[in-house]
This record gives sequence, structure tokens and C-alpha cells, in this order.
Amino acid sequence: MSEKIVLALGGNALGKTPQEQLEKVKLTAKSIVDLVEEGNEVVVSHGNGPQVGMINLAMETSHNSKENTPDMPFPECGAMSQGYIGYHLQNAIQSEFRKRNIDKSAVTVITQTVVDENDNAFEDPTKPIGSFYTKEQADKVMEEKGYVFKEDAGRGYRRVVASPKPVDIVEINAINKLIENDTMVIAAGGGGIPVIKKDGELIGVPAVIDKDFTSEKLAELLDCDTLLILTAVEKVAIRFGKEDQEWLSELNLEQVDKYIEDGEFAKGSMLPKVEACKKFVESKDGKRAIITSLEKAKDALNGNTGTIIKK
Amino acid sequence: MSEKIVLALGGNALGKTPQEQLEKVKLTAKSIVDLVEEGNEVVVSHGNGPQVGMINLAMETSHNSKENTPDMPFPECGAMSQGYIGYHLQNAIQSEFRKRNIDKSAVTVITQTVVDENDNAFEDPTKPIGSFYTKEQADKVMEEKGYVFKEDAGRGYRRVVASPKPVDIVEINAINKLIENDTMVIAAGGGGIPVIKKDGELIGVPAVIDKDFTSEKLAELLDCDTLLILTAVEKVAIRFGKEDQEWLSELNLEQVDKYIEDGEFAKGSMLPKVEACKKFVESKDGKRAIITSLEKAKDALNGNTGTIIKK
Repeated sequence: MSEKIVLALGGNALGKTPQEQLEKVKLTAKSIVDLVEEGNEVVVSHGNGPQVGMINLAMETSHNSKENTPDMPFPECGAMSQGYIGYHLQNAIQSEFRKRNIDKSAVTVITQTVVDENDNAFEDPTKPIGSFYTKEQADKVMEEKGYVFKEDAGRGYRRVVASPKPVDIVEINAINKLIENDTMVIAAGGGGIPVIKKDGELIGVPAVIDKDFTSEKLAELLDCDTLLILTAVEKVAIRFGKEDQEWLSELNLEQVDKYIEDGEFAKGSMLPKVEACKKFVESKDGKRAIITSLEKAKDALNGNTGTIIKK
Repeated sequence: MSEKIVLALGGNALGKTPQEQLEKVKLTAKSIVDLVEEGNEVVVSHGNGPQVGMINLAMETSHNSKENTPDMPFPECGAMSQGYIGYHLQNAIQSEFRKRNIDKSAVTVITQTVVDENDNAFEDPTKPIGSFYTKEQADKVMEEKGYVFKEDAGRGYRRVVASPKPVDIVEINAINKLIENDTMVIAAGGGGIPVIKKDGELIGVPAVIDKDFTSEKLAELLDCDTLLILTAVEKVAIRFGKEDQEWLSELNLEQVDKYIEDGEFAKGSMLPKVEACKKFVESKDGKRAIITSLEKAKDALNGNTGTIIKK
């Protein structure tokens, strides 16, 4: 059965250095093209945590060195990470298409995600980015630039930014047109470059949008059948890591709510994935969401493994 | 008259820091959207010299610092620069569309440009990138990584990379489909990410492709009517900067050849622009190329200024 899918790649699909990423995307591309070969229309999104962190750190380090390169705002670092990761992904996917004689192209679309400037998240920034500072250094930067710093587990002070919810995806029409014209799109990398609406303009803001929530928004706006979130495990578990741990094959919305309430899913890890799946399934009748590993994507899509979330 | 145009932006359209770039792209977007408002189909390409230089320098500085971020290859720095510049450009153009009630979107497509691994340019790399080294430092890196260094006007040793000619643009089909679907595309930033074909794969190589030549290739592959190269001057001149300097309003191919032979156009500046125009005009009957400034783009397109190159 042919489906329209948003496939959200986790950090394990990319690795931490450019050399590692170049290797990993080859396997990632194989898993993705397996789904295309079965007749599915796939849109790829991905995280950018380690990559944007590295770019931001490099820019900061170089700015503060004798080279004094320009101070690079965080949204611009995010845009760089989309170009960097997108290049590797599209190159690997194109190569896989050629190998299998699939006449299809793959491109990366630089993507901005609208967030609400009144999102509560801006009142309590929680996502650490960049390098570690002493209290004195942090106070100085805080005063100069208005950044917020928080003490990080005894290791020093780190800048923190907000993690607001995605409201809209600016480039959705172009993404849709590419899909309709048989082109695979890589979009909304790292959750998208966060922008707020102000006097008719879209202004970049330093924030980290959870890539699972943006992938959900993407799947909703594109009216996809399935939201496929790929991570390090084959299935979602309750009592994770405990003796009586239980892998889950299927979850309905009542179970999702109960397990969330029970604190079964780790914050910043499995919780946003399950929440994104829930939101997608609730958005319209007949939608389903799947959480599984990259390796098991095809099997899970065919109903043979993974955790399927349905109404 | 409605035309299909590749518009190649020069460095002056972007500036040197992110803050400057954000300001400059607003004016740039106005000039671009002026052409769209007249009914033209515009594809935007741009240079990335200062930007990729800055990214490469920051990555190098941070890699060699105590932060020890990963060693970032040059093609990946180019991909980052496309994301960074593309984000600013598409944001500004989208904003200008909204202001004028033009129902059109604008997106950046990460673009790879195929070059020939046997291009003579690889035998004599000439484009300096990155920071200055002492002879000892340069020798050490040369040995470790195989980079080529050249002495730079008494200021020290800098890594040099080749500047091969563009052979093909990998994402051309996707770019074409977006245009056909009424979407403005920003593509081939910095001449594109240079890749060579090897055993069915496309492999990124450290090189700088002249953005004017890639813009020409783009215009040819898209079967555009006009190649519009924007730079700091309103017209091309002969005897430039001399007392008897003469601005040129029109040039045919014989004149182009003669002036090139006479050494009228500066290498790395006006020469590649004129050569790109020549190549485009020669590619098919009825094509024209224009060299002018960003501010005069509309006037020049309507035949009122700029230097027009025709058969």
C-alpha cells in the first residue's frame, strides 16, 4: 500500500563529525529508499542537535579568538546546519536512487518554522547551547547581549534558549509542489529555523524547536498518512530499563495519555516523540504514527514491528 | 515583456557580517521583486566568497583551539554558506512578496555542481582560503592533509584550492519543477558545492567554482532568455580607471573576443562575468546577457542601461 510519509531521522542517523556523517548517511539513505521502492512518498526531516551545537561553538570560539570572525546568531547557525546535513543526505539519497534505477531526485529545502513570540517557553529557556563559562564570564555576556545562562550540573554556566512549539512552516507550499512533482524533499532540519511574526516580517529568534514536533506539523500540513519517527530503539517501552520492562507494539490514545501521566517516557527523549505521535493521530481520522529504529523502518511500516500509535 | 532570467548576485548584495547581510538583503529583495512584478520569472544565484571564507576560518580556528571541534571539509563549509545566505535571501524576498501582495513563495535549494576531476584547474590551485600560516605550519599541514599552500603577497602562507569549470547542476530538475510551479528559487549559491563523479557517486571536493560560470550553466540548463549578472558597476568599461575610460552599452561577440584579447577585463573580477555572458549568448540563438548593478537591474532589463551582450 502506497503511503505519504514524513520520516523524522534521529541523531543516530547522522553521527557527530562530517566524516562519520558521510558514512552514516549511506545506511540512512538505504533505509529511506527502501520505503520509496515500496511505492511510498517520503519526506525526510532530521534533528541537528550535535551539528548546530558544533557550528555555534565554532563560531563563538572563532569570534572570541584573535581571528575575530563575526558574532553569528543562533538561527543563522541553524540555517548552516540545514545546508550541511541536507547536502550529505541528498547526496546519499540521490546515489541510492541511481543505484536502484529510480528516476527521482532529492533536494534540501531551507526551512523556517514560525513560533509564537508569546509561547510560554520563552519565559523559561531550558535548552543549553554553546560552550561553558565561569560565572563572571556568563554575567558579562548576559549584560552585553541579554543572553540567559544557567548553571550546568557543576560544569560551569551555559547559554540556554527556549524550546517553543512550531506554529507553521513557511516553505510548506514549495515543499508540497516538489512532492507533487515526484521529488523527495529534505526539509525542516533541526525543527526548522525559528522565526516569529512581527509587523509583517519573519524574524529569526534564538530557540530550538523540537524536531519531532516540527515533523508532526509537517506531516499534518502535507496531509500525510503516517508520521514515522526513527530513533535508537525498535519499539517504545514502559518501565524502560527495569526488570519488568515491556515493549509496546500498539498504543491507542488512552494508553498514551495514561503512560505519559505515569511518567513512563523520558523528557527530551521518548516523551516528545510520543507527544508528537499523539498530536498527529488526533489531527484527523485515519492517521497513524510509528516509532521505530532506522533499520526496522520498512518492517514497521508494513506492520511487523515498531510501536504503532492509532486512535 | 515577460522573460525567464537567472539573476546572479555579487558580493555587494550581501555584505560581510550576518547583521550587515540581514540589512543588505532587504534592498536586494526589492530589486529582485521589482523584476517579478514586471512579469518575469527570476531564479536567483549568488556568490559566497566572504561567507564561506569566514565559515572555513571559524571552523579551522575552533578545530585548532582547545574546543577541538571536528575538522570541517571545504565543500561542507560551502553547503553551510548556502544555508546561511539562502535563509536571509528567501526570508527577505518572501517579506517583499507579502508587502506587494504577490502570491508567490521563495525557497533555497541546496545545490551541488558537478566538475570534471580532470579539469586542468586541479593541477594549479589558485584560490586562497582560510587563515595565514608560517612556512613551518604550512609544511606540516601540507604533509598531514595533502593541502596545497602558496605564499600570499608577503603576508604568509595560505591554503589554495582549484577553481574548476561547472559541468552540470545536480538539482536542476527540482529547480525546474519549482519554477514551473510559480516558486522563486535561490540556487547554486557560491557556484554550487563542487562534486566529482566517481564510480556512480558524487564526491565533494575542495574547490571554488566561479559563481558567474555556474549561473551561466544554470541559465543554459533552464533555457532562460537572459543571464543577468549584477555587480558594483552600472556598465562594463574598457580602459577601466583610465582617463579615456569608456562605458559600454552593447557588446557583440566579436567585440567581447577582441576586448578579452586586449586584456581589458580584470581577472577574477570583470573577466569571468564577460566570459560567462559570452558562453550564454553562444549557447543558443536569441539569448542575451546583461551586466549591471543591483540598483539598475530593472532599467537594464528594459534596455535603458547596463551592458548588453548579444550575438
